[in-house]
Amino acid sequence: MTTDHALLASWRDTPARQVIVDYVDRAVQEGGAQYVPPSERIAVFDNDGTLWCEKPMPVELGFILQQLAETAEQDSSLRAQQPWQAARDKDYAWLGDMITKHYHGDDSDLKVLLDGILQTFADMSVDTYAEIAERFLRTARHPMLGRLLRECTYVPMVELLRYLEAYGFTTYIASGGDRDFMRPITEEVYGIPAERVIGSSAGLRYRGDDTGGSIVYEAKMDGFDDGPMKPVRIWSRTGRRPVVAGGNSNGDVPMLRYAGRPSRPGLRLLILHDDEEREFSYTAGAEASLEQARTQDWTVVSIKNDWATVFADKVRDD
Amino acid sequence: MTTDHALLASWRDTPARQVIVDYVDRAVQEGGAQYVPPSERIAVFDNDGTLWCEKPMPVELGFILQQLAETAEQDSSLRAQQPWQAARDKDYAWLGDMITKHYHGDDSDLKVLLDGILQTFADMSVDTYAEIAERFLRTARHPMLGRLLRECTYVPMVELLRYLEAYGFTTYIASGGDRDFMRPITEEVYGIPAERVIGSSAGLRYRGDDTGGSIVYEAKMDGFDDGPMKPVRIWSRTGRRPVVAGGNSNGDVPMLRYAGRPSRPGLRLLILHDDEEREFSYTAGAEASLEQARTQDWTVVSIKNDWATVFADKVRDD
Repeated sequence: MTTDHALLASWRDTPARQVIVDYVDRAVQEGGAQYVPPSERIAVFDNDGTLWCEKPMPVELGFILQQLAETAEQDSSLRAQQPWQAARDKDYAWLGDMITKHYHGDDSDLKVLLDGILQTFADMSVDTYAEIAERFLRTARHPMLGRLLRECTYVPMVELLRYLEAYGFTTYIASGGDRDFMRPITEEVYGIPAERVIGSSAGLRYRGDDTGGSIVYEAKMDGFDDGPMKPVRIWSRTGRRPVVAGGNSNGDVPMLRYAGRPSRPGLRLLILHDDEEREFSYTAGAEASLEQARTQDWTVVSIKNDWATVFADKVRDD
Repeated sequence: MTTDHALLASWRDTPARQVIVDYVDRAVQEGGAQYVPPSERIAVFDNDGTLWCEKPMPVELGFILQQLAETAEQDSSLRAQQPWQAARDKDYAWLGDMITKHYHGDDSDLKVLLDGILQTFADMSVDTYAEIAERFLRTARHPMLGRLLRECTYVPMVELLRYLEAYGFTTYIASGGDRDFMRPITEEVYGIPAERVIGSSAGLRYRGDDTGGSIVYEAKMDGFDDGPMKPVRIWSRTGRRPVVAGGNSNGDVPMLRYAGRPSRPGLRLLILHDDEEREFSYTAGAEASLEQARTQDWTVVSIKNDWATVFADKVRDD
């Protein structure tokens, strides 16, 4: 059968779009060689750089720096320590070095940042955290694109989510970022409810009281959902091997490899950031995934060539 | 509004049933004081002893003992070691002692059993494990009730799942048992798909290869989903606080306490095993939960008095 390709209105009529619609057309064709039963129609998508913009820095990092800076305002003893110092002084050099080191396998500064984050949110309830994350996500603006952060979602990808769901796929976010940071707004910006958001998470414990108790964060990680942890956490959540996966970086390689197998071919999409005019142009952190895309028959989606529209119209101009 | 109470056909017209239908009638009454928005209609149920029979021993334990015995058959060096010795020799005294010790806070033998289980399944893929679990669950028979194990689900509870779903509730299993053991048959026996099964789990890792790779078990636990871990894992999976919870033992107390809060009252059900004629009669392991039910306004469901039917008709007689 032919699915409703018009649902992908913001995609140009290119080979990448053709691969997607061919895949879905065949997946829903009962009796066809590439038919996928509805229970196996699981589609997983990385978040930062795949469903929305991650430059000049991931949205979550902006939130964390704001929280760390506020903490340092209240506690002067932290101001001479990293990561509070960098957050308060807006020391982007320290942060940039941290990311460069990470790409070269040195996560010592990343660990300093993570420990600071865990310390900042320890003993906070998930409800309080959701409130402050939501407040940030509703009001914060992108520093360069002149729009709210929550308006930095990629329209073609949101269309792809709806298109897949229209044909029986269940969509999940499989983010390397913090699961609980995104949950308050994923339903609104992506149409994906909290229970279909997978991602990194801090340890949690139940704190009982006489009014139902609450779940609070512990000062340690539960799981950093990147690289080989992505398939593990996808499987833990869904109990299925996905057939559709979308990502944009080296950390998405195992997830993309895990989607589909010889007896049930998958659709693997890798977003290429090559549009410095409408978004950003970069491949740092994506080198291995682009190499794999060439050898593994993944579909590279060029923002510049494959998308007619990148972002929706702004709610209001600056 | 009045919901369709006839969906609970196997429940007698008792105060317990009245509490349930009153709760759901009010939850769906828009504008009412006890209205629950659809996104918050989350219902969680323990499995063993709540949705199906757990006596004379939990179904999963039977599976594990079978696997341990088979391993000991193949590896004679294990036969003199616990837990393989007990499994091979059907040494129910050792197992009974283990459970008694557990109820008194001594988990030393339980740890021996767990370590044996983890060692037995280490490096097995989740797909292989699902196959052998499913084979067991499709064919094994209850030792006393004269029926297949998968026919030991409680009809009134399955009706309750459908009744809740008919009014917009999303149902989850929150088992203390192994999540992956149950997943292969939950859709068939409870109408609950794999992605809505929460439970204990062994550690997992992704093992890459050229055909998509696989998820394999590690020889360590990821989480033992009992007591205060139940609310934590429910929240991790769903991103919500449930409003309906059902359990039957001390390990369900935190989950039942977590369901609802003063501003959004919950429905908390505690199954009481008091029917030695049709099922079993016991309160061992449920003492604290029964005490809490009295002080916390939970609803005790008596199998003897509240259920007209316990099990469905057998597929075939012995």
